[in-house]
Amino acid sequence: MLEWLESIGLADHHCHGVLGRDLGRAEFEALLTEAETGGPPGVSPFDSQIGFALRRWCPPVLGLEAHASPEDYLARRAELGAAEVNRRFLAAARLESLCVDTGYTPESLLDPPALGRLAGAPAHEIVRLETVAEQTARDGVAAAGFADEVRARVAACAPRVAGAKSIAAYRAGLELEGARPSAAEVTAAAGRLLRQEDPRVCDEVLHRFLVWCASDAGLPVQFHVGLGDVDADLRRGDPLLLIELLRAMDAAGTPALLLHNYPFHRQAGYLAQVLPNVYVDAGLATHNLGHRAPALIAELLELAPFGKVLYSSDAFGLAELYHLGALLFRRGLAGMLAGGVEDGAWTAADAERVAALVASGNARRVYRL
Amino acid sequence: MLEWLESIGLADHHCHGVLGRDLGRAEFEALLTEAETGGPPGVSPFDSQIGFALRRWCPPVLGLEAHASPEDYLARRAELGAAEVNRRFLAAARLESLCVDTGYTPESLLDPPALGRLAGAPAHEIVRLETVAEQTARDGVAAAGFADEVRARVAACAPRVAGAKSIAAYRAGLELEGARPSAAEVTAAAGRLLRQEDPRVCDEVLHRFLVWCASDAGLPVQFHVGLGDVDADLRRGDPLLLIELLRAMDAAGTPALLLHNYPFHRQAGYLAQVLPNVYVDAGLATHNLGHRAPALIAELLELAPFGKVLYSSDAFGLAELYHLGALLFRRGLAGMLAGGVEDGAWTAADAERVAALVASGNARRVYRL
Amino acid sequence: MLEWLESIGLADHHCHGVLGRDLGRAEFEALLTEAETGGPPGVSPFDSQIGFALRRWCPPVLGLEAHASPEDYLARRAELGAAEVNRRFLAAARLESLCVDTGYTPESLLDPPALGRLAGAPAHEIVRLETVAEQTARDGVAAAGFADEVRARVAACAPRVAGAKSIAAYRAGLELEGARPSAAEVTAAAGRLLRQEDPRVCDEVLHRFLVWCASDAGLPVQFHVGLGDVDADLRRGDPLLLIELLRAMDAAGTPALLLHNYPFHRQAGYLAQVLPNVYVDAGLATHNLGHRAPALIAELLELAPFGKVLYSSDAFGLAELYHLGALLFRRGLAGMLAGGVEDGAWTAADAERVAALVASGNARRVYRL
Repeated sequence: MLEWLESIGLADHHCHGVLGRDLGRAEFEALLTEAETGGPPGVSPFDSQIGFALRRWCPPVLGLEAHASPEDYLARRAELGAAEVNRRFLAAARLESLCVDTGYTPESLLDPPALGRLAGAPAHEIVRLETVAEQTARDGVAAAGFADEVRARVAACAPRVAGAKSIAAYRAGLELEGARPSAAEVTAAAGRLLRQEDPRVCDEVLHRFLVWCASDAGLPVQFHVGLGDVDADLRRGDPLLLIELLRAMDAAGTPALLLHNYPFHRQAGYLAQVLPNVYVDAGLATHNLGHRAPALIAELLELAPFGKVLYSSDAFGLAELYHLGALLFRRGLAGMLAGGVEDGAWTAADAERVAALVASGNARRVYRL
Repeated sequence: MLEWLESIGLADHHCHGVLGRDLGRAEFEALLTEAETGGPPGVSPFDSQIGFALRRWCPPVLGLEAHASPEDYLARRAELGAAEVNRRFLAAARLESLCVDTGYTPESLLDPPALGRLAGAPAHEIVRLETVAEQTARDGVAAAGFADEVRARVAACAPRVAGAKSIAAYRAGLELEGARPSAAEVTAAAGRLLRQEDPRVCDEVLHRFLVWCASDAGLPVQFHVGLGDVDADLRRGDPLLLIELLRAMDAAGTPALLLHNYPFHRQAGYLAQVLPNVYVDAGLATHNLGHRAPALIAELLELAPFGKVLYSSDAFGLAELYHLGALLFRRGLAGMLAGGVEDGAWTAADAERVAALVASGNARRVYRL
Repeated sequence: MLEWLESIGLADHHCHGVLGRDLGRAEFEALLTEAETGGPPGVSPFDSQIGFALRRWCPPVLGLEAHASPEDYLARRAELGAAEVNRRFLAAARLESLCVDTGYTPESLLDPPALGRLAGAPAHEIVRLETVAEQTARDGVAAAGFADEVRARVAACAPRVAGAKSIAAYRAGLELEGARPSAAEVTAAAGRLLRQEDPRVCDEVLHRFLVWCASDAGLPVQFHVGLGDVDADLRRGDPLLLIELLRAMDAAGTPALLLHNYPFHRQAGYLAQVLPNVYVDAGLATHNLGHRAPALIAELLELAPFGKVLYSSDAFGLAELYHLGALLFRRGLAGMLAGGVEDGAWTAADAERVAALVASGNARRVYRL
């Protein structure tokens, strides 16, 4: 039973590219944490839940014993080379499909087709809304024409992408109103954006306008929620702040996917219960919590209906995170479901049905994959 | 020991009526979730912790095997009829007493005497403060006379009710000041209320005024806190927002009972420790969390003194929720207390004493039942 | 393994004095809770997690059986006398060093040297910043000279103290800006302070100014965060409110130590991961949670790198709290680390290394003890 649950393929509905080149220790450590560096002297992200989980589960994929030292692990990684390492970990994740956020590419990352080839699964694109707006501003447009141009670009990419993503939580925060902003409000906000040397969307009106562009284009909308890198202001990333917009999106029939959520995952689960259009995951947090991931998954599944929970890795940069996210999620979900069967709380058939929903069925339904 | 703890009678200090008529599947599902409907296509509340808990524990009460399918369960429910179903579940809850909130009766629900007969236990009434104010407004009164009329009505019902309840969390939110509002403030707020076609209290001044009416009438005051149906704005339901009013009520010697609390139950437990007049429960969340209820109960009991924790089901509409809430709370509390005895953390005598307090002793003391 | 982990010496980086005189029951109970008194009639802090933990672990230190009744325990305590009781519990805590906050001494408490003698370990002082400012105001100074005088006093004590502490969370709250306040702002705020009969710092500008005085003096800064006594307004004690100042302190190279944190310990763990200068503990909450302390420790260690977590008791008044905090923390940490070894999540060598960091290594590094 546990074995079966752990063998199930996953739809990773939110992930990023991995680096196609070799990495030194400092760079590797920086990619293992949401901080900008591996830490001050005396502190290493290898000494943390994610570091211990990596050393437990990743060395065997590279032909080492579990719990290899960081030094041995990184030496073996360098010996194999990035291409082989990426190939092994993407395959180890056993994904059924991927939805790749292409909005943040600070350096050359593998693109969705390359990721899909490594994973042996279709890789869909998720368009990042703020990136569309910023590119439009950089391409040159009058403030009065901004709204139409952005709306047209989002609509134009809709046929080829699986969904859209908002990073309002990193910028103006999730306290967004529900109503569509007026044309005058968007034009005024566009004017402010266009006056910036390097346009960066950080404006309640614009984040909201972008969500409605995606909704009008028939796209499900992902929201960054909860933990993220040090740029985030976590207090503005509480999903409860988003309730007005979520209600308005529900009235419009647009699915909203709340990503990550930790440490507000119970709040997110509540929203997934009370609003028909709200879905949740525990991406990023799952591999960050390592040995504690089962506790997170159990808490996420307290209020959230099982038809509203998805899997995502939120892997970025390191191919290891594809493997770790998938493995820890599978084990956490399987342990929780099998534990319930053992306690007589539900049947094996129920457990298998729920596992199939959460692993990929819900994602297929929401994104029409 | 575990058996003894699970046999104990409970005082359900916050519950509602159940429907006296038969229910179709859509209606049943809608009553099983805090959303307005059972969910979008492909999603059912039967596939959630509460749904699984219902299928685990309720079918045997109706003469079916545990884990009966939703279809079989609903067919058997229809076959027996609402009256018999209600009788069985209310009896199965093994209640010592009930405190019934009569403020929300969207359609004909069983009233406290009928519930009490089914439960075989005295059923006390809890008066909902906002309902009194809205009825007063509908009955016609001048703004200048509103305060006196409402105060008189609350005082008039005090002898026959066990307590009062505020739903400020559903309306203006819990950030209420501590001081009694001035007569001029109440008159101005009443004027605004009276100008509404269908008067609905959503006003910081009026919620606060109502709490003081109850306090002056010598009534303990329940507050909706934390999760509730989709009308609630959960960010405004954090009990920490209420601290000024709780302090002022403590100075006046008025008990405050924080209901539900999830996902802010640890915050509520803190308030129960630091303020002598604050009491807490985990109603509604207990049956919603199903198999995870023990985790919730353990967290609630981290900071809250054992003399400050009460039981409630917050059952509404479905008689099953009376049974589920009671059963899951008993099991969760018993498991936690018996586990501590097994670990040598406390004695069996201590565990039994605490169980008696939480199950009913605290409720009897606070409400003078 | 578990035994070894439980034998390890601890650096208690945040604690207070204990009372040198005998205590009656009411006084003892009031010191066992964060409320002002032991509770309303019928409620005793002995019936709570901290009360049960005390009765489990403290009687044997005084020569009684575990689970002695409160009456027997207090009688034995009185028989032995405060000096002997204090000696036994401070020794039982097996501390390697202490950092004692000397800013709150409502009555004669043992001072750091006396505590150090009882503990058989060096006792360092932590200077409370608001106390320095209030003493300066009481000593008489012109508003225009206030900043220089306070800065000089903080600098003057820097060589003899291990760090500084801010209690902004108890006063104006943790939502402090990052930038140093201007001289004009500090002078204006000092003017307001000096006009008070009994000067009490409760001012965003002054709390922030004080933190920068400590930073300039090269001192690590502790912040009260999360739970505390009833004076605290817990909603203003969320560590996420502090992020601007934490970032600015990071740029200045000043360590920030977030104390207590419950129920925001996961938020604190996030900050410890993303900001290089942020460290966390679970003081006060550890002994308050008693049998549930392991859950707290596991949650704190979800995101926080193991090189960023410290031990503190936050013991105040009762010597028992030194023993309880240390014992519960040791057991919780050891149980979590040994459990991971048993599950194959990490190696015994890793567990021992992490235990040494958290128990004292991190404190030695941050405070340069």
